[in-house]
Amino acid sequence: MGTAGDYESQRRVPVPPSKPFLKSLQTNLKETFFPDDPFRQFKHQPAPRKLLLGLQYFVPVLEWAPRYTFNFFKADLVAGITIASLAVPQGISYANLASIPPIIGLYSSFVPPLIYAMLGSSRDLAVGTVAVASLLISSMLGKVVSPTEHPMQYVQLVFTATFFAGLFQASLGILRLGFIVDFLSHATIVGFMGGAATIVCLQQLKGMLGLVHFTHETDLISVMRSVFGQIHQWRWESAVLGCCFLFFLLLTRYFSKRKAAFFWINAMAPLTSVILGSLLVYLTHAEKHGVQVIGHLKKGLNPLSAYDLAFDSPHLMAAIKTGIIIGIIGLAEGIAVGRTFAMFKNYHIDGNKEMIAFGMMNIAGSCTSCYLTAGPFSRTAVNFNAGSQSAISNIVMATAVMFTLLFLTPLFHYTPLVVLSSIIIAAMLGLLDYEAAIHLWKIDKFDFFICLGAYLGVVLGSVEIGLIIAITVSLLRIILFVARPRTIVLGNIPNSGIYRSMEQYPVANNVPGVLILQIDAPVYFANANYLRERISRWIYEEEDRLKSAGESSLHYVILDLSAVGSIDTSGISMLQELTKNVDRKGLQLALANPRSEVMKKLDKSKLIDKIGQGWIFLTVGEAVQAFRRVNFLMLRKELRDNHPPVLVEEEEGMRRHF
Amino acid sequence: MGTAGDYESQRRVPVPPSKPFLKSLQTNLKETFFPDDPFRQFKHQPAPRKLLLGLQYFVPVLEWAPRYTFNFFKADLVAGITIASLAVPQGISYANLASIPPIIGLYSSFVPPLIYAMLGSSRDLAVGTVAVASLLISSMLGKVVSPTEHPMQYVQLVFTATFFAGLFQASLGILRLGFIVDFLSHATIVGFMGGAATIVCLQQLKGMLGLVHFTHETDLISVMRSVFGQIHQWRWESAVLGCCFLFFLLLTRYFSKRKAAFFWINAMAPLTSVILGSLLVYLTHAEKHGVQVIGHLKKGLNPLSAYDLAFDSPHLMAAIKTGIIIGIIGLAEGIAVGRTFAMFKNYHIDGNKEMIAFGMMNIAGSCTSCYLTAGPFSRTAVNFNAGSQSAISNIVMATAVMFTLLFLTPLFHYTPLVVLSSIIIAAMLGLLDYEAAIHLWKIDKFDFFICLGAYLGVVLGSVEIGLIIAITVSLLRIILFVARPRTIVLGNIPNSGIYRSMEQYPVANNVPGVLILQIDAPVYFANANYLRERISRWIYEEEDRLKSAGESSLHYVILDLSAVGSIDTSGISMLQELTKNVDRKGLQLALANPRSEVMKKLDKSKLIDKIGQGWIFLTVGEAVQAFRRVNFLMLRKELRDNHPPVLVEEEEGMRRHF
Repeated sequence: MGTAGDYESQRRVPVPPSKPFLKSLQTNLKETFFPDDPFRQFKHQPAPRKLLLGLQYFVPVLEWAPRYTFNFFKADLVAGITIASLAVPQGISYANLASIPPIIGLYSSFVPPLIYAMLGSSRDLAVGTVAVASLLISSMLGKVVSPTEHPMQYVQLVFTATFFAGLFQASLGILRLGFIVDFLSHATIVGFMGGAATIVCLQQLKGMLGLVHFTHETDLISVMRSVFGQIHQWRWESAVLGCCFLFFLLLTRYFSKRKAAFFWINAMAPLTSVILGSLLVYLTHAEKHGVQVIGHLKKGLNPLSAYDLAFDSPHLMAAIKTGIIIGIIGLAEGIAVGRTFAMFKNYHIDGNKEMIAFGMMNIAGSCTSCYLTAGPFSRTAVNFNAGSQSAISNIVMATAVMFTLLFLTPLFHYTPLVVLSSIIIAAMLGLLDYEAAIHLWKIDKFDFFICLGAYLGVVLGSVEIGLIIAITVSLLRIILFVARPRTIVLGNIPNSGIYRSMEQYPVANNVPGVLILQIDAPVYFANANYLRERISRWIYEEEDRLKSAGESSLHYVILDLSAVGSIDTSGISMLQELTKNVDRKGLQLALANPRSEVMKKLDKSKLIDKIGQGWIFLTVGEAVQAFRRVNFLMLRKELRDNHPPVLVEEEEGMRRHF
Repeated sequence: MGTAGDYESQRRVPVPPSKPFLKSLQTNLKETFFPDDPFRQFKHQPAPRKLLLGLQYFVPVLEWAPRYTFNFFKADLVAGITIASLAVPQGISYANLASIPPIIGLYSSFVPPLIYAMLGSSRDLAVGTVAVASLLISSMLGKVVSPTEHPMQYVQLVFTATFFAGLFQASLGILRLGFIVDFLSHATIVGFMGGAATIVCLQQLKGMLGLVHFTHETDLISVMRSVFGQIHQWRWESAVLGCCFLFFLLLTRYFSKRKAAFFWINAMAPLTSVILGSLLVYLTHAEKHGVQVIGHLKKGLNPLSAYDLAFDSPHLMAAIKTGIIIGIIGLAEGIAVGRTFAMFKNYHIDGNKEMIAFGMMNIAGSCTSCYLTAGPFSRTAVNFNAGSQSAISNIVMATAVMFTLLFLTPLFHYTPLVVLSSIIIAAMLGLLDYEAAIHLWKIDKFDFFICLGAYLGVVLGSVEIGLIIAITVSLLRIILFVARPRTIVLGNIPNSGIYRSMEQYPVANNVPGVLILQIDAPVYFANANYLRERISRWIYEEEDRLKSAGESSLHYVILDLSAVGSIDTSGISMLQELTKNVDRKGLQLALANPRSEVMKKLDKSKLIDKIGQGWIFLTVGEAVQAFRRVNFLMLRKELRDNHPPVLVEEEEGMRRHF
């Protein structure tokens, strides 16, 4: 006896030395909050150098400004002017969507880009207002204060929400909780953005059809009821004008997509539409025939609005809630966009740093008459295509917008609202990423349903419902993965000591008399009961199979714990019960490749002694080999003694031996 | 060139054939809802046999009744009478705790045990009312209807809550959602039960001190304020009597714990206390000196209460909420208790079937003047120790309680309330499982904090707060496991082809020029960004280490995907970016042991072609071997050509070759 013992003494699975609790806690906290090790560059540096590095860490402009050249500036100048031509009409349009005065949309493209240029770490991100957040503002804040009846109060609430959005974003970055944004998976964002684009387009029916009264709800059913409830108010002049411009915008998009060098056609199209539309109205006096126009825009730069922040408003809670939601959505889009373009140019974006930059730009914005800004995909893509080299292109854009604010605002007097609607619809159609949805369906059905859930939630319910559905389903997937882990039967790959899933590798063979099971997830309270029942079922199914095939009966069960990264006390109890059950059936249990944490807990719970150190192996192969030796010895003994096999007692004795 | 290609052709990781969506959905649903395969025994059986099996499945009594013998009955008779002696005083005490008339406590030990005996699958579970649910009823329903001012309405609400508890329990069982109970981990239950026991004991201060007015809150602070706010109302007579009985009960427990054969001392102690206490009060007329007694109890069996169910009450929502909470807590305790004792006797308990049995017994109970019943641990343990053989002991208990109801209720007239308080405290002290908490601390710190959170939440907040804290923290642990998976550097175990964690196996050696990383969790949206950054950090840390040690530079990165049980589209994107990044650094990436699902998605996303089929290996060992061959060939070529190594181009060429 004791052959397995001899064998395992060559190579055994060590019980890791126990670490002090505080030390392991510290390691865990570091991995959770500082996975990117931001202090690495500070190591072994003299104090002044550390100070400079620290400053550069928080104000990235200090890092790249010394290396900035005139050639870079030329590229940034072109890119900056290009995005300014997009920023002006988009700014006015999105302000309209948020039910605030159009001029605030222009203000918002002046101060925030300047702040971002100092603090942001992306070289390509173009700062600006975003459609989804704009719509969210009007739908969430419009419920508590009417933008038409109390415009002053409403605008103050918008600034307050922007302030809280900034505060929330900056706090996430400072507290290194940036990973919260990761919980908005790609699938969620695709569905959510598609849904948001759909409801933004639906809202444009108001402008396209020249309607005066419109629902405050955003869901499909309310909007359709509102639109078809007032068929007689539809204005064909608006609709025709809108459709023409929409056609023009989509045509330019089509051309610029076919050839990358034509990107500027797409970039210039909105400004061209605005100019053409304004000229048309001015010449035909269409404003007197049912075509609504922007009207008077105040000249001059952003007025201060720090004193307008309504901290004592009775609607403060609504402002905070809106702020948190638009803040996180702004971050999610902004960081995803930043990362995508950083990938193209092979540089790295620090999520937590970006959050601080976004937060600061929104806090500063809320004090200077700006509402929420982020990094819209469309504008950033134009910036990238126009050859931007650094955040200087944002400064150029801000300067161009400043110029517009100071001198050009009267020119927008005759701009028809319907052109703005066309610009919004054209931009939104680009966000309807049906190709990504098809891709999701092809690769991962579950992700597709998450995406669909987010889309339908947004379109049929509201933005918040869509978000909640998508995040809940995403988390449910993680929990389900752990709650119902797969248990896989392993077989031997011929001519090797390798054991792999019999299902995945059809060449793999059963080892007679041995059942090898692999558990595919950490063993936690959520799956301990399931695993106990499932493993029992594997054992009796295997016994049934062997019986009906007339093969020799089952003697050994090997649990391959390679994929069990963690275990809790419920998991340990499960293993304890399993050991007892297997024992009672007269089978021998062995563990293969338990990981460090599992070994530690097996040791602390004394389960290791019950299973026997000799039955814990480095690999499945070694466990099988050990069984073969034991079997051989028993067979020899049996032949020698010439009496019927008494397997159970033998094993019992063997276990006591270890 | 192409050596790796030759090598891998021997054994390659196959791309699994794609399954139709509906079929894989069906498999997944079956694994999720029918992991125990309850229909297994129905296979290949004639129709009448199927019918019988089906009946036996739903009414387990049909299964074991034919095998029942007289010897079993003798054992059950003793056990039944023993638990009846516990059921009567406990029934009265817990009814008191639930602020309902004591007689309802007795009713509740009559009908439900009969139902459970028909439908339940546990042979040892003793049915009865439970302290925690009783307290919950009075604290949750007492808030909406005062039990002293509107006793009728309150009792109706209690029946209604019991009805919904039963409905909820039965539905969980029928819908096969039994696994929801698994989310109450062992650690949660220990903390929760300890907290509940503490607040139940605190509530007994009312009876012990003979107080008339008492807070309706259950938290420590409110109770302490209530107790010390009326020091002058304390009655020493009550307190002395209570302490004596408590001492007596704890003494008997101590003795019966020291010797298992003395279990009946403990079992009989409550009834003895009640008899002694009643006699004492009767003889000394202590009821006139501040010792409160039960008073008049109605004779007769359970009256029907089906028409008392208050479905049209304005407090219906409160009843439903209370029902769901007490229902799930009753289930969690009952099923845990049933499983524990089934383990001792090596039989199997079907969680879903138990839920249906619990549900039916509570629905029937709510129509026959009973309130919530479950399987209390203390009573079941006594039943088990008294040698019960089947659910017949429950029928014996019900018969004994029936006898009490018909003839003996007048005897309880002089039973002092303080004795009931002592009985409750003695029972609750047994639930304060500090040893289990120490065990948790030793084995798993995280579980300990979950337990502590549940305990403090219950004691300082309320039962619901404690439950919510514990479940949230438990789920957070699962999510954190996935959000921050460990990445482990593997090394070679000397004299073998085995690669294991360098941290766990100090004997393991680095392979020069190769970084081998193992990912420890499914690659999901929640960790895709983290993993990308963490893997990059591993690579540059390894490069730093090699540089400072003056060793040869890094050439290869192997990702061991053995423990990656699943991947979603975000994970695939992460691998895509990683492939690009590694490529850009001039390194070669290889994957080892990707699992079936990972291979499927790598294939569908075409990433498999970008990485190259030739760079996907069955084991880490084979990947390292392939690198060694490529390296050797390149070294030879280099020596021959006698010019500096051009690794990057070489590899580029090689990749194109595959």
